[in-house]
Amino acid sequence: MSLSSAKRICQIIELKPSAVDEYTKIHAAVWPGVLAALERHHILDYSIHHYPPLNLLIANFKYTGDDYAGDMKALATDEETQRWWRITDPMQESFNEGAQGSGKDVPWWTDLDEVFRFDGQP
Amino acid sequence: MSLSSAKRICQIIELKPSAVDEYTKIHAAVWPGVLAALERHHILDYSIHHYPPLNLLIANFKYTGDDYAGDMKALATDEETQRWWRITDPMQESFNEGAQGSGKDVPWWTDLDEVFRFDGQP
Repeated sequence: MSLSSAKRICQIIELKPSAVDEYTKIHAAVWPGVLAALERHHILDYSIHHYPPLNLLIANFKYTGDDYAGDMKALATDEETQRWWRITDPMQESFNEGAQGSGKDVPWWTDLDEVFRFDGQP
Repeated sequence: MSLSSAKRICQIIELKPSAVDEYTKIHAAVWPGVLAALERHHILDYSIHHYPPLNLLIANFKYTGDDYAGDMKALATDEETQRWWRITDPMQESFNEGAQGSGKDVPWWTDLDEVFRFDGQP
């Protein structure tokens, strides 16, 4: 699958104001095992942005595989990823009612609807 | 410049609830002249997502040129783009104090800080 035809995902969550420094610091050097798991499950071109006035984190990434649900389920079984989530989940507040954490039944991050897309020419 | 080393930009603005239908409709078929102007000014891989509970629009795009400020200034002089903004600006509320509209001195959309980036392998 070409990069331009990849599924594009935008998700949001709240970052607790008390956790901003720690979250920023840990994301400046994400563990290699966590990044390897993303790559193994066809996730790339991944960025997270922060808007402090709304305590908002925005994640944007592409999925280049052909079984998104299956890859997300498999990712949630990766031990290094689980260890990462045990550190980062408590820094966040989900917008989703009933959400208990990353990799659980109710999604932790909230997936948004795409209203516009333009690939353009590199 | 390769796509993976491009500057990545994430911006937010509010979408007035009364304008959701019109905004969605017009963005399903953006005018070719508007898209051509984006391309001419090295903007690509552009998506906009919507989160109704916060009236939030999130734009995410890449800039592959070498003079972002100059390209944005030039884009703001494009007549078709100006005509587009005269339609879409009134549908939005800026988070930026003193903002008067797209292409003016005070930015209309709010640029966010990137806290994480992972390019990965396509």
